Amino acid sequence: MLGKFQIGIMGTGNIAGVMADTVNKMKNVKLYAVASREKVKADVFAGKYGCKKAYGSYEELASDNKVDLIYIATPHSEHFANAKMCIEHGKPVLCEKAFTANAMQAEELIRLSEEKGVFLAEAMWTRYMPMLTTIREVIGSGVIGEPKTLTANLGYAVSHLERMKDPNLAGGALLDLSIYPLNFALMLFGYNIAKIHSSCTYTDTGVDEQDSITLQYIDGRMAHLNSSMVSLSDRKGIVYGTKGFIIVENINNFQSVAVYDSLYKKVGLYKCPKQISGYEYEVEASVKAIRSRQIECAEMPHAESLRVMKIMDSIRKEWGIVFPFEKAETEPKSVEEKTEQEAAVLNDKQSLDRENQESGNPELEKAGQMENQE
Amino acid sequence: MLGKFQIGIMGTGNIAGVMADTVNKMKNVKLYAVASREKVKADVFAGKYGCKKAYGSYEELASDNKVDLIYIATPHSEHFANAKMCIEHGKPVLCEKAFTANAMQAEELIRLSEEKGVFLAEAMWTRYMPMLTTIREVIGSGVIGEPKTLTANLGYAVSHLERMKDPNLAGGALLDLSIYPLNFALMLFGYNIAKIHSSCTYTDTGVDEQDSITLQYIDGRMAHLNSSMVSLSDRKGIVYGTKGFIIVENINNFQSVAVYDSLYKKVGLYKCPKQISGYEYEVEASVKAIRSRQIECAEMPHAESLRVMKIMDSIRKEWGIVFPFEKAETEPKSVEEKTEQEAAVLNDKQSLDRENQESGNPELEKAGQMENQE
Repeated sequence: MLGKFQIGIMGTGNIAGVMADTVNKMKNVKLYAVASREKVKADVFAGKYGCKKAYGSYEELASDNKVDLIYIATPHSEHFANAKMCIEHGKPVLCEKAFTANAMQAEELIRLSEEKGVFLAEAMWTRYMPMLTTIREVIGSGVIGEPKTLTANLGYAVSHLERMKDPNLAGGALLDLSIYPLNFALMLFGYNIAKIHSSCTYTDTGVDEQDSITLQYIDGRMAHLNSSMVSLSDRKGIVYGTKGFIIVENINNFQSVAVYDSLYKKVGLYKCPKQISGYEYEVEASVKAIRSRQIECAEMPHAESLRVMKIMDSIRKEWGIVFPFEKAETEPKSVEEKTEQEAAVLNDKQSLDRENQESGNPELEKAGQMENQE
Repeated sequence: MLGKFQIGIMGTGNIAGVMADTVNKMKNVKLYAVASREKVKADVFAGKYGCKKAYGSYEELASDNKVDLIYIATPHSEHFANAKMCIEHGKPVLCEKAFTANAMQAEELIRLSEEKGVFLAEAMWTRYMPMLTTIREVIGSGVIGEPKTLTANLGYAVSHLERMKDPNLAGGALLDLSIYPLNFALMLFGYNIAKIHSSCTYTDTGVDEQDSITLQYIDGRMAHLNSSMVSLSDRKGIVYGTKGFIIVENINNFQSVAVYDSLYKKVGLYKCPKQISGYEYEVEASVKAIRSRQIECAEMPHAESLRVMKIMDSIRKEWGIVFPFEKAETEPKSVEEKTEQEAAVLNDKQSLDRENQESGNPELEKAGQMENQE
């Protein structure tokens, strides 16, 4: 384990590509394998990024003894099944956010990780960034007085992307976009939440299109969060104190922290250190944890991933949004429904389509957006 | 009426001073009189700003035949009684926001204005600013695509100011601070609101300390508004579209509108034209309306002031915040309570204290804030 750490990537979409490129530029880790449900895609990916192995099934990747860590970049509706399979094969997992589709799935994965003693972490990349420490230090310095209020937003005009609106793929703004403002608030204001108020508008497919989430803390602090899949937002996270405020540029990939005093003058600016893509930090943290035989990362421990999923579950419950596969899990099925669902599972074409609808980071949706505009 | 328009000012606080200074720098209007419940305060104010008349009671000002317009700058808990008295004396009124303490009071004033044919307008100054037209033009140009989302906030660490927390003075963040984000949303997204979701934290005196208000429009647009009396905010209003967004600097006194494209590049900047204080526009609009025998301003018509008050009433109802004088208006009083209330009304000292707690514009609270910091 003291040689180069061998990374396997599950999925071949944009985010998988960024991770491959990042790993190739890192020391101590090596891009080793890629897996897709379509062998040809794995081959193309392997050719492009220089993977030694290209697998036409996820199970082959999970079974390869030379893989030290599997990075899961499939749609979030698939994370549970994919991660479960990896852990059952004893393979450490770094899984893209949203960690799972709901808390029940997260609990099951965590239980399995503990039972098998296999590493499991959520690739909520901002949690691992050195800029998070900088932001915390700036707030902790007292320069803005006592922090009392927080706002954060994330929006991209991405409602044309199939997975965003598809309830079968755990679509909606919440799991893809609101998860960033939510993590931003939890990272900086913590967890002593007294009440959560939220509301949303709906797509024609019945998932949330624009979200508004307000966290009220026991000590009176408030976090105002919003996201949208129909408009482009400034992506800023702002913490307001009694003497000033800080503006974090891009909560989806921290670029800078600017400090403003009570006269609205900029009195400080901290820029993001040079980074490969920003993905390197979650990989480094995972490698470090695995090497010291931890089954989780301190930066995003199991309890934390579970907490986020539970909050999102409670919000979805209020909004009346239940994913079809959740209904299947909790409600008795009619014969017709069951047959339809089984038919769907057997439908290879659909499975392949799903793979193409990777989850992950909206930064990269920009590419899709721009293509769409051309 | 074709000579210089003679302005009378009711109240002698910060905002009254800014208005006096503004009027002195305007053409076609003249600062004529000031009134306070304390004659000495009126005298000092008159001396400082050069008023011909200084009255020791509001009624004297309202009775002066040479006054063409009375600007009311008393606490918002007093607006109703002050404006009513002016209108009953046939005097045109420009009343600081919040227009009244509740919609019932607003309705009564509007009814009276119509009955008597006397001009009445709310001094919601951003409604009258030329920058509002600029903002509307920028959005209308299509440069940010279709506007879908809006955020606006206003926060000042002003909870040390007595009136902010005093329920007797219609305190709380809502009437003083949230009124700005709320007007910002109504000015730009209009009134076809499907649902309003809101929440707040409370001061130890039982009024709202931090507010979160989400407006859902029938067409799926959303406006996320927040305010705070315990933290300093960036005061930005942002409209997010499908292709970009605009950032309005300071929704409490429009300074600029910056346009950002889908790559987050600033592609346009419109600055506020040179102005005296910004108060001149509401005065000019009032003079123009009065001269053409209108009883309201097109920029902030009666229906609009009433709409805002109704929204704030409904929000306060959800929050369970009832001002003490509202309880008196709607609930049967016990003998003890009635005696106490009457005693309070008779308490001159208290009345004078109230006068010193003017309502109006948080821009000017900054002064108070800075004094406090020294």
